[in-house]
Amino acid sequence: MHKKIVLTGDRPTGPLHLGHYVGSLKNRVILQETCQQFVMLADVQALTDNFHQPQKIRENILEVALDYLAVGIDSKKTTIFIQSLIRALPELTMYYLNFVTWNRLKHNPTVKQEIVQKNFGESVPAGFMIYPVSQTADITAFRADIVPVGDDQLPMIEQCNEIVRHFNRAYNTQVLVEAKAMVSRVPRLPGIDGKAKMSKSLGNAIYLSDPEDVIAKKVKGMYTDPNHLRVEDPGQVEGNPVFVYLDAFDPDQENLAEMKAHYQRGGLGDSVVKKRLNEVLQAELEPIRLRRQEFAKDPGAIMNLLLEGSDKASETADATLRDARKAMCLDYR
Amino acid sequence: MHKKIVLTGDRPTGPLHLGHYVGSLKNRVILQETCQQFVMLADVQALTDNFHQPQKIRENILEVALDYLAVGIDSKKTTIFIQSLIRALPELTMYYLNFVTWNRLKHNPTVKQEIVQKNFGESVPAGFMIYPVSQTADITAFRADIVPVGDDQLPMIEQCNEIVRHFNRAYNTQVLVEAKAMVSRVPRLPGIDGKAKMSKSLGNAIYLSDPEDVIAKKVKGMYTDPNHLRVEDPGQVEGNPVFVYLDAFDPDQENLAEMKAHYQRGGLGDSVVKKRLNEVLQAELEPIRLRRQEFAKDPGAIMNLLLEGSDKASETADATLRDARKAMCLDYR
Repeated sequence: MHKKIVLTGDRPTGPLHLGHYVGSLKNRVILQETCQQFVMLADVQALTDNFHQPQKIRENILEVALDYLAVGIDSKKTTIFIQSLIRALPELTMYYLNFVTWNRLKHNPTVKQEIVQKNFGESVPAGFMIYPVSQTADITAFRADIVPVGDDQLPMIEQCNEIVRHFNRAYNTQVLVEAKAMVSRVPRLPGIDGKAKMSKSLGNAIYLSDPEDVIAKKVKGMYTDPNHLRVEDPGQVEGNPVFVYLDAFDPDQENLAEMKAHYQRGGLGDSVVKKRLNEVLQAELEPIRLRRQEFAKDPGAIMNLLLEGSDKASETADATLRDARKAMCLDYR
Repeated sequence: MHKKIVLTGDRPTGPLHLGHYVGSLKNRVILQETCQQFVMLADVQALTDNFHQPQKIRENILEVALDYLAVGIDSKKTTIFIQSLIRALPELTMYYLNFVTWNRLKHNPTVKQEIVQKNFGESVPAGFMIYPVSQTADITAFRADIVPVGDDQLPMIEQCNEIVRHFNRAYNTQVLVEAKAMVSRVPRLPGIDGKAKMSKSLGNAIYLSDPEDVIAKKVKGMYTDPNHLRVEDPGQVEGNPVFVYLDAFDPDQENLAEMKAHYQRGGLGDSVVKKRLNEVLQAELEPIRLRRQEFAKDPGAIMNLLLEGSDKASETADATLRDARKAMCLDYR
């Protein structure tokens, strides 16, 4: 039977945090047992809005790879690769660009939203505008069936499949495969400042690589219920980051339910809840941090592993490209 | 001393005609003696507005290559190659796309004009919009000093050099070389129907591959001075396609001057002038046609020659890409 093929990855713009861990990394550790999984370090995509900071991307390739290995993504089960080493990808992107109009790109909801977020104004780099097409190359090159995404990324998958259908129709072929979005059911982890999203750029994240004391300090300073002023006041649990994190990480959900009830009727201080969260997070993150330190001792070995993964990924992508070129009458050799 | 490097080429969308011959091919035969010349069969670019007709592009790769060889472009002196076989080109294109804004592309005068000509309306393929960036990859990959162009293409070279400067500044490098446009001083050859431009799409061209009788028939049917109704009427020489062609091709320019004077004062019939033009064109085109027929006997050998040229071109382009990637901190290996 055909093993499902998964494509996923990250932009190497900084180390990974708890939000990545809950939202995608844990899932990858599970998926690698049943699927053929490709995990991409998207350096080319990261450059589209960091093109003047190449050194940052370069450094974070290694940091993110360490995070992957530390959480248990296994390079024997998962092909971890560097996007810019896969020569088929830019070539497929060029061919796909013929199947999407300028106007369609401009109206992609995900892209529109990100243009606002990134404050590009009138100066949107063309490389950024076309990244949905570049993603289509990523997805189709590996003939991925499944692409794990957040629900804000659904328009990207729709655009990808549109291109797939146009290409297959134009060249009367079945070379390209439509992908299914696998939308994460895990609620998004808020930042430690209470903002809706944990993110590198907001500076409100707990990183997988954070040392014990940094985690403790971040937990201590976490935003909770701003109306929970005195211990005896009733506190709010919904949307309270400390409880959202406990929901996600506390193995003792029974005790957690009791704590929530206590907090809601009043009499439970934030510091007690935070103490519990610190215990829980330290227990979860310590083995990850230790494995990370172990892997970090030999960065050369990690890079070799990425190069090997990239060679393997290249073979797969080149096979797709070969078929696509044949369909396009570009099979000169 | 550094030999000047020339990059030029054609979109393989149809066989080449007299306009190409006068405007560029003859020049290439001269340039190959003193420069390092790369001539590109731009199949990828041709696909941007012919993506649904890949077979047409494929067939014309061979036709155009035959035209090249027939006019005397020598594969030992000139590297003739197929664009889609040069893997560095799409990759460089992707990186360069970060250095040009969406708005800048939209306002490129050459692109704007061509969008109107090609009746794209609101449905401009993104692949077409970005072709100035793709051309920048073509030019810079070979570190071309000189790019022969028509004056309508000057904004393209300007855009190319803009990207070169941005890239070099951003990565603090001198990897990319600015190119100089070499604007043809040869006046554009009108169509046989008197329209300003000889072109495949207008169906008003004399092809290098046209047989003798087809040339004779096309010359006989040529548009001349519409007010030159009777032989004894004075006729107009300026802008009269028959005389424009004679200016370009007649080796006996003294006799031509006499014919012009005669035509202007009246008494010289169109048929006499056309007879002369037919003689001149047949003399020019016969050896080309014969060489073409000779080369056409072994299409396999021609394709091998293109593949060899493409390998050679790939080496050069890969060296540039390697330097560019190093500047971008993408030198993982």
